[in-house]
Amino acid sequence: MADLAATVADIAARLAQASARGRVADYIPELGRVSADHFGIAVVTAAGEEVVAGDGDMAFSIQSISKVFALVEALCRHGDAVWDRVGREPSGSAFNSIIQLELEQGRPRNPFINAGAIAVSDLIAAGDASSAIAAILARIRRLAGDVSIDVDTAVAWSESQTGYRNAALANYMRSFGTIAGPVDATLSVYFQQCAIAMSCRQLARAGRFLMAGGMLDGAAIISPERARRINALMLTCGHYDASGDFAFRVGLPAKSGVGGGILAVAPGRASIAVWSPGLSPQGNSLLGTQALEELAHAMGWSVFNPEL
Amino acid sequence: MADLAATVADIAARLAQASARGRVADYIPELGRVSADHFGIAVVTAAGEEVVAGDGDMAFSIQSISKVFALVEALCRHGDAVWDRVGREPSGSAFNSIIQLELEQGRPRNPFINAGAIAVSDLIAAGDASSAIAAILARIRRLAGDVSIDVDTAVAWSESQTGYRNAALANYMRSFGTIAGPVDATLSVYFQQCAIAMSCRQLARAGRFLMAGGMLDGAAIISPERARRINALMLTCGHYDASGDFAFRVGLPAKSGVGGGILAVAPGRASIAVWSPGLSPQGNSLLGTQALEELAHAMGWSVFNPEL
Amino acid sequence: MADLAATVADIAARLAQASARGRVADYIPELGRVSADHFGIAVVTAAGEEVVAGDGDMAFSIQSISKVFALVEALCRHGDAVWDRVGREPSGSAFNSIIQLELEQGRPRNPFINAGAIAVSDLIAAGDASSAIAAILARIRRLAGDVSIDVDTAVAWSESQTGYRNAALANYMRSFGTIAGPVDATLSVYFQQCAIAMSCRQLARAGRFLMAGGMLDGAAIISPERARRINALMLTCGHYDASGDFAFRVGLPAKSGVGGGILAVAPGRASIAVWSPGLSPQGNSLLGTQALEELAHAMGWSVFNPEL
Amino acid sequence: MADLAATVADIAARLAQASARGRVADYIPELGRVSADHFGIAVVTAAGEEVVAGDGDMAFSIQSISKVFALVEALCRHGDAVWDRVGREPSGSAFNSIIQLELEQGRPRNPFINAGAIAVSDLIAAGDASSAIAAILARIRRLAGDVSIDVDTAVAWSESQTGYRNAALANYMRSFGTIAGPVDATLSVYFQQCAIAMSCRQLARAGRFLMAGGMLDGAAIISPERARRINALMLTCGHYDASGDFAFRVGLPAKSGVGGGILAVAPGRASIAVWSPGLSPQGNSLLGTQALEELAHAMGWSVFNPEL
Repeated sequence: MADLAATVADIAARLAQASARGRVADYIPELGRVSADHFGIAVVTAAGEEVVAGDGDMAFSIQSISKVFALVEALCRHGDAVWDRVGREPSGSAFNSIIQLELEQGRPRNPFINAGAIAVSDLIAAGDASSAIAAILARIRRLAGDVSIDVDTAVAWSESQTGYRNAALANYMRSFGTIAGPVDATLSVYFQQCAIAMSCRQLARAGRFLMAGGMLDGAAIISPERARRINALMLTCGHYDASGDFAFRVGLPAKSGVGGGILAVAPGRASIAVWSPGLSPQGNSLLGTQALEELAHAMGWSVFNPEL
Repeated sequence: MADLAATVADIAARLAQASARGRVADYIPELGRVSADHFGIAVVTAAGEEVVAGDGDMAFSIQSISKVFALVEALCRHGDAVWDRVGREPSGSAFNSIIQLELEQGRPRNPFINAGAIAVSDLIAAGDASSAIAAILARIRRLAGDVSIDVDTAVAWSESQTGYRNAALANYMRSFGTIAGPVDATLSVYFQQCAIAMSCRQLARAGRFLMAGGMLDGAAIISPERARRINALMLTCGHYDASGDFAFRVGLPAKSGVGGGILAVAPGRASIAVWSPGLSPQGNSLLGTQALEELAHAMGWSVFNPEL
Repeated sequence: MADLAATVADIAARLAQASARGRVADYIPELGRVSADHFGIAVVTAAGEEVVAGDGDMAFSIQSISKVFALVEALCRHGDAVWDRVGREPSGSAFNSIIQLELEQGRPRNPFINAGAIAVSDLIAAGDASSAIAAILARIRRLAGDVSIDVDTAVAWSESQTGYRNAALANYMRSFGTIAGPVDATLSVYFQQCAIAMSCRQLARAGRFLMAGGMLDGAAIISPERARRINALMLTCGHYDASGDFAFRVGLPAKSGVGGGILAVAPGRASIAVWSPGLSPQGNSLLGTQALEELAHAMGWSVFNPEL
Repeated sequence: MADLAATVADIAARLAQASARGRVADYIPELGRVSADHFGIAVVTAAGEEVVAGDGDMAFSIQSISKVFALVEALCRHGDAVWDRVGREPSGSAFNSIIQLELEQGRPRNPFINAGAIAVSDLIAAGDASSAIAAILARIRRLAGDVSIDVDTAVAWSESQTGYRNAALANYMRSFGTIAGPVDATLSVYFQQCAIAMSCRQLARAGRFLMAGGMLDGAAIISPERARRINALMLTCGHYDASGDFAFRVGLPAKSGVGGGILAVAPGRASIAVWSPGLSPQGNSLLGTQALEELAHAMGWSVFNPEL
């Protein structure tokens, strides 16, 4: 097996120079201002080792990666009642598609597409947007062990002014009762959680409990069964309509965001965060995916390998 | 960790008595004649141990489980050119849906839904149906180490007489060129491969190479990378539109068939086959899924567990 | 040909007693309070004769019938530029479906489904909701020759509090730029125009210009070509996903509303309004449709008859 | 009102020279060989006058126009039981789309899209393809008063060798029971009826009964009510997913075919056939539509005009 630090350093050095870097998301104006030149990576191992390279300490907008932490918050509050609101199946559609929502009577396929995440935010909010976003932030800070993590309000504002498709999804679900609270309050939570800014190091730390069966520093954040199940959801649904390809190439539970970040979990081995703002057509970080493919291959970390 | 033999015996004894057993597929008349009372299970471990219980030595129609072996055959013949014909994404639709095929210009989402498997059969056939089915059979016999495995011609005939939706899929793909050979020849291969009869013991043996990084008895059937990738496809796409739920509950790469069988792989640990003819609404064995959930939990075999 | 007054009286008398009356729309609470027992009808002929029967002078919520008048207003203001925003094809979907909007990049199929009508309201509003609703009202008052016609504000309020699916459609179109103004202002115009209250007599008068090639009292409201084209749109798209059946049975251009009203046009012959609150599953007045079928048949008024 | 002969001559002269002529259908190889330069027109008035210009006596493949005559044959044999098999609504989809068929459980929307026409052919065939095509031919010969009309077997053969999408539709409907007979026999009828060759003059004559309330030479072919209803279907569904636009522009019941022909009916006035092989993207004759728009406008023949 390869040496982790050397492998990470090598990947970071090569990808910093890559020419094809994908396209930075520009439908949220604030995100469009970030340079495609960034590349960051951070790995925290089960033994506690931290390896960080490139722009691994630079904060970026975690966007849909927040859906993992919001799901944890909702499960801790409401238990399996979460699954009365959202399903657990890959969607076979784009992240912001509304077609399936009509065919399936307003019930989102899974908590990692936009509709599902908005439904989860609504469940947490229960009409009280400020308490909800405070709770999600508190959870992330605790998981990362870092109280400095916060919402980037410029990004949140930018999203709220242009998030018409998310407003369409929320109103549509409200008409079916999938969302119970005021649409505006629910969207406020959703836009703010997406606008949380974190570095790769902070994200990798925040993902440690998923690598460790739900445990963090000797305490159970969630049960081993829930940790296992969240990993399963990340593997089958974590990359929108490219989840199958990501499992095929990388073989790790992971969640991407349109800010260019990806949080990946090698159960029992490592929690990994990568960041590069340029996206594939499906909306996942182009170089981030490549970095994870190379790292997982070099370290033998795919969950589908016999040696894991 | 639980004792394997005792766990398997316990599961088999309890499920033989279960009252809710699902509904036997009856759209293929021959399959409708099988009693819902059967339950069989077989486990082959990495160490070579075999544990068989219930009706684990009774042959049944493997149906869509054959898609795994046909994919291996196609990859061995055509390499990654297979992916020019079919995708690698979960479909978000029923196993026999044709909607996505129209929206995506005749390209099936993955090789484990009907459309994708028919495209793979066409690739193997290349117009010569008899050679193709002979090759698929030869491969399965070698993987299982059992030359007695054969096509149940009564089932194949029954399917060919009623397989109008598969004929629709094949003709539709032919209009886009996804299928190149004569539609009848391609369907003949597909109907025959689905009609192969095997017992749980034979199936579990045939799946050993996927548990072992592509190796069987010291020889490489396929590369470790391909074995890993097939496992990934089984996890994300192996249970049609219930693949996400299966990953959530069981956490193992697996492929189901409407005959009531499921082949599951715990990489590095075990190859497992279960059989019970009653199906869930999504077309997967009801008790088979439950057996795998219990077994994986008892043995700690989920790929999403840190201890694996 | 039958005597008009006797035919109308006979239809009104029989339908007042009909037992199967459909189901009153209740998704807008205010509409749900109206009794299904009402039946009204009014006919204004080309010669100026008025025949009114049953509850033909009782005001009801015109709902989607307002889409005809809003389209006229938009055409008078913007000419054929209206067709840059909305199409002219039947939708093949329910009145409030959002699927086609995604498949067709936010462009509504026609101005008589909800999405298309909201786009037309947005075009009229141009950001100024109060001027827009005033203009639509003024147009209807002039066409009907009745300044007492007004918005039922209780209905408008009721719709605005529960119109989540319309809010979804509006936000969705806003994301594609089909709607240019503030979503709330556009919806305000739409909810108010739908909440206009009119009697059958007022409606039949307001439809005279469509019977007469665009002319009213010797003045051209719109050109003969536009009048003909609006009639064509009413025939192909006026009854949502039951437009084909209405053309098949009745054979007249017509527009229905979920308040139970229908405005129908026999070009060169008559302008007709019927009202009965009970709806078919597709959302069109059950007895209203039956009344028009009987009247058109008795008078030979189908546009598909050789004698017209 | 304009002089008919002069108007027709003028249209034919101008369109023979038009530069933008659309694209000749080439998915059926035999059709692809026809030159886009042709333009033919024939009008038969209620008074029996015949006006023919351009290539109005040259035979072409009537293709989907045959669906009108097959529907008449089916209605004469089975009465309103035809509507148990097919609906009467515009589809909102392409002529060969299969999506709606899945969403609506194998029931085609109307008899003028491919799926619906295949279901009608199956109803006529009742398993006996040769009798069925003979009956359809006999009906057309009688309606046109011309026993020389026949199937172009080269075209029929060409379609049968490449008609995979139609084979997909037929097999799909067979799986739902919408088609009862052997798929091959049904398709044989369908491919042959589409391959009937007729000139504009023959077609216009064959459409006379629809202009005349079902009467031909003093005999009732069908009842006035059925004639009216077939006209309604032609208006709402006769041009696939461009039916709304055709009604908007031309305002006459009409049925197009991918051979470039259109049969149009001005009830009480005229039966009209035009032919020009170049098609619009929706599959309707480009110059044929333009010719009908000009003719209907010049003669005041739109069914939506007050003066008709």
